[in-house]
Formats: sequence, structure tokens, C-alpha cells
Amino acid sequence: MSTSAVPRPSSHRLTPKGEATRARIVEAASTLVFAHGVTRTGVEDIQREAGVSASQLYHYFGDKQALMRAVIAHQTEAVLATQRPELDALDSFEALGRWRDRLVTLQRSRHCAGGCPIGSIASELADEDPEAREDLVAGFEQWEAPIRSGLATMRERGLLQEGTDTDRLALALLAALQGGLLLTQTRRTTVPLEVALDSTIELIRSYAV
Amino acid sequence: MSTSAVPRPSSHRLTPKGEATRARIVEAASTLVFAHGVTRTGVEDIQREAGVSASQLYHYFGDKQALMRAVIAHQTEAVLATQRPELDALDSFEALGRWRDRLVTLQRSRHCAGGCPIGSIASELADEDPEAREDLVAGFEQWEAPIRSGLATMRERGLLQEGTDTDRLALALLAALQGGLLLTQTRRTTVPLEVALDSTIELIRSYAV
Repeated sequence: MSTSAVPRPSSHRLTPKGEATRARIVEAASTLVFAHGVTRTGVEDIQREAGVSASQLYHYFGDKQALMRAVIAHQTEAVLATQRPELDALDSFEALGRWRDRLVTLQRSRHCAGGCPIGSIASELADEDPEAREDLVAGFEQWEAPIRSGLATMRERGLLQEGTDTDRLALALLAALQGGLLLTQTRRTTVPLEVALDSTIELIRSYAV
Repeated sequence: MSTSAVPRPSSHRLTPKGEATRARIVEAASTLVFAHGVTRTGVEDIQREAGVSASQLYHYFGDKQALMRAVIAHQTEAVLATQRPELDALDSFEALGRWRDRLVTLQRSRHCAGGCPIGSIASELADEDPEAREDLVAGFEQWEAPIRSGLATMRERGLLQEGTDTDRLALALLAALQGGLLLTQTRRTTVPLEVALDSTIELIRSYAV
């Protein structure tokens, strides 16, 4: 009985200018949520950051909850974009290594702040908002799917032993990544992220032919 | 230049009744923070939950920040307590398995809600409050230390190969646990937690003699 099928205000047939304004609002909200979290980000802060009025904001998003769902979708796209092209071709140990390096470099460039843009929203909203939780599940699934598919390709190409449960290894890799990001955010060093990813890649290597 | 050496209001020489009131406030705050997060938990909510007045609360804690630091200390103790006695003797593969089972059973009993009581606060406060971040670093360290010590004992007892970097494996296990808890909270199934822990334990097993 999800209400996600209920059309959100003005979600259809926006003019190009309307699309741009909507995108600006989502971008502003995403920036603030990444920096301060969902609860600390007020609708007024988002208006100011986006340079829109309250009525403009409510024209595009009926309430903060609807806007936060757009933020989750936006952040999922953004997270996946920062990991491309590596994420879409995790089909060799070299590719896994390059992806790992990209993730570590990104956190280093952020001075380890922010954690995971999706994971941090999940931690805040998973218990509070059932619809946001569904979006977050979908977001993590969009992330896990290419990992799963890459490892399956490695098995098909004969790099991993026949019968290797690559789905399980993909989930382990996503979990290691999430935990590594959180500890890296807390400890302000990329060591936990590096150790978490390297350990799981080491486990995957133990299935090499 | 930490200000943590500055005495907090009434942190010294409390009467037994004062100690009990202080403990009741911290307990109430911890319950609310675990359920709703730091930002969503107002001081008035805590007063109501603990059955104390504003002046009583401010007698024990100068501000919400001071109270949240007490919550971090309390939750660290509580998290470690729920994992005892297993956590203090992770010195065999059987012990690792029992600890893993305890963690999974606990999340199942919570219907996968809440995530990690320390990790969820870390996600909210690590970037916002430098002193809280230090406390969270210390909390994670209190958790990692017995894992590290258990794995080192396994190496000393000849269960793991000489030269095994058990510190690295301990950190990998804590990261897997954190990521597994977050994905378990989001997906409402203990599968991610199980896969994350089992995978890391499998990696540890690859170092068995």
C-alpha cells in the first residue's frame, strides 16, 4: 500500500525553466543534507541555498518528505556517477583495484568528511520514513547490482572458480564499503575504508582460479 | 586543545539520589536517541521521558552537547555489555561464531531497527561536533580493542599463522559489522549483517594454520 504512485505536485510536464528550478532545489537540498543531515536541514535553508521562494519550493515538492525522496534519487545518481566508469566494469581484479582506489581517493579529497551520501541518509531515515526506506533500499540495490554483475562476469570469464557465490561477495563488498566509510568519517583517516575494501577483495581473490 | 578537561556541571560528588537522577536522564536520552537520532531528540522530550524538570536536567548537563557525550559513553557501555561475555574472549573460531550469532540474534530481536547505537550517532555527529567525534573514536576503539586482542590470542595460540596481521583483520571485522548493521537496518533483514560477518570470518579462517 505504498503511496509512491500518488503524483507529486508538478512532477509532470515541467517547462525547461521549471525543470532547471526543480533541479536547483534538489541540488541545494542534497548539498545541505550531505553536509548537515536530513533533520538539521530546514526547508528555509534549502530555499536560501537554491535562491527560491517558499511557494516555488512547494510548487515542486509538496512537503519536505517529497523533497527528501528526490534527494535520495539524486544522491544515488551522484554516488554512482563518481564511481563510473569503474563501477560498470568490475570484471577483473585490476578493475576492482581501480574502483577501490577511486573510492579511497574520493574520501581523501573530502578530507574523510560526509561519509556515504546514501548511507548517512539511510542511518537517519530508515526507521523514520517507510517510503524513504524503500527508496534507500532501491538506491543500495542500484549500487550493488553492477558489483554483482561484475563479479558474475569474472566467474563466467573463468577468473573466479565455478560455483563461487558472487552475489554474496558483492553484498559483502557493499557492506565493507559502508562500514569503511563510516569509520573513515569518524576517525578522519582513510585507513578503515582501505582495510575494509582490501580485506573483501582479498577474500574474493581466495576464489580465484 | 580539547575542552573535555573542563568540569561539567555537577559531574563530581553527586549524592546517591543525584547519581540515580543523572543516570535516569542519560538512560532516557539514550533510548530516544537510539529510536529517533540526536537531532530529532529535543531536550524537552528527554525531560518528559526521564520525568525531570528543565532545571534538574541543566543541573546535571550544562547543555545538550554535554548530555549527548554522556549518551555516547552510555551507549558504548551498553553495546559492549550486550556482546559480553563473547566479546571478551574472541580467541577461537568457535568464539567468533558465538559472537556473530549473538549480534545477529540481537538485530533480529530488534526487528532490524535502530542500526548500531554508536554508528548511528557517529553518522550524525562526526562532522558536526569535534568533541563528540573524539568520544565516538574512543567508543569504536573500546569495541575494536577486544576484537584485536582476541585475534592476537588466536595467533599466539597457534590457531592463526605466525605473522598474520590480526590488527588489520580486527578493523575489517568492525567495518563489516558497521556496514552490515546499516544495510540490515535499511533492508529490514539480517542477511547483510550475516553475510558481512561471515565473509570476514571466512577471510580470518584463510589464515588458519
